[in-house]
Amino acid sequence: MKCYQKSIKLRPYPRGFHIITDVIINEFPQLESIETGILNIFIQHTSAGLTINENADPTVRKDFETFINDIIPETYSKFIHDYEGPDDMPAHLKSSIFGSSLQIPIGHGKLMLGTWQGIYLCEFRNHGGPRKLILTAMGL
Amino acid sequence: MKCYQKSIKLRPYPRGFHIITDVIINEFPQLESIETGILNIFIQHTSAGLTINENADPTVRKDFETFINDIIPETYSKFIHDYEGPDDMPAHLKSSIFGSSLQIPIGHGKLMLGTWQGIYLCEFRNHGGPRKLILTAMGL
Amino acid sequence: MKCYQKSIKLRPYPRGFHIITDVIINEFPQLESIETGILNIFIQHTSAGLTINENADPTVRKDFETFINDIIPETYSKFIHDYEGPDDMPAHLKSSIFGSSLQIPIGHGKLMLGTWQGIYLCEFRNHGGPRKLILTAMGL
Repeated sequence: MKCYQKSIKLRPYPRGFHIITDVIINEFPQLESIETGILNIFIQHTSAGLTINENADPTVRKDFETFINDIIPETYSKFIHDYEGPDDMPAHLKSSIFGSSLQIPIGHGKLMLGTWQGIYLCEFRNHGGPRKLILTAMGL
Repeated sequence: MKCYQKSIKLRPYPRGFHIITDVIINEFPQLESIETGILNIFIQHTSAGLTINENADPTVRKDFETFINDIIPETYSKFIHDYEGPDDMPAHLKSSIFGSSLQIPIGHGKLMLGTWQGIYLCEFRNHGGPRKLILTAMGL
Repeated sequence: MKCYQKSIKLRPYPRGFHIITDVIINEFPQLESIETGILNIFIQHTSAGLTINENADPTVRKDFETFINDIIPETYSKFIHDYEGPDDMPAHLKSSIFGSSLQIPIGHGKLMLGTWQGIYLCEFRNHGGPRKLILTAMGL
């Protein structure tokens, strides 16, 4: 049984949804030595998230940003936790709704993503800075 | 350590929420040989999802469909990504909100679901077709 | 390869979001013997959930409760499934949106949570009672 783990720091991304599939694969060549298993990607932050969605048309990522800002608005008047700026409390909520980890099956040394699936970093802060991820791969 | 993996194709389901617990268990008898471990179910699509919820009263699944269509409406006027039809962009958003994988503990060869828990396929497209799942079970 | 599993019952928590990081760690000392791996936490209920979010300022948890009640209101008139009380159907939806499991990397016998991350029990019922969790840790 194999178990690999690596901590990586992403470059700072602007607020929005960003495809990081290639970053993950390039940072973690140990994946190739796993015949059958699971990759866990974990983000160590509470104002950013991870999700899987369409990897082709960039308008999907734009629509994600537009819609999620409308449904969890910075102008929501009942937030008490506001001293870190109006983008902070919405970022916490978005982080929990999208989630802080992904689990992707590994087969023959490759991520078994569907044809149209890509890994998204969801940056919910205006200036989130470099985000830390833990990559853990387990299998045979 | 054991690690089993199987790719399965579901029959086409109509738009809505559908219990597929028995399909998973029947397709993956290898589960029975794992004393302690985890099952990962991964859907290789960006307009459908997976979740766990109540397995008894079918009105729960109807209420899921009604509510989620109201909160992520096809009539939302700001979507740019609309050339695959009005059900497409809402489907992408719903997929990320519900998620594309489930992790369920295995004990004594069985899924350790609670009494009222069932595995839902969330079909967000009007004509999603047959959906592909990857089942991966790891443990002792 | 190591694989530990434990079923625990939480004390009843009031409706709202509650940090249970210490409960998990104290109930599962086997974590310390895993050098590299993953902890899975699974809740065996469909009207409560688990998430990771900020562990410091309690106003974040209050804002979670306020916001989620506004966006999935008990007064939503189209719910059919209402015979278990007005807090029931919203609880099912919230449970699927937040999710029923967490996966957290383990390094050197410790959970690799970020500085500000805590594990939340999301209690969505008015009187949810004691909730059952399954803890499963796997790794080397």
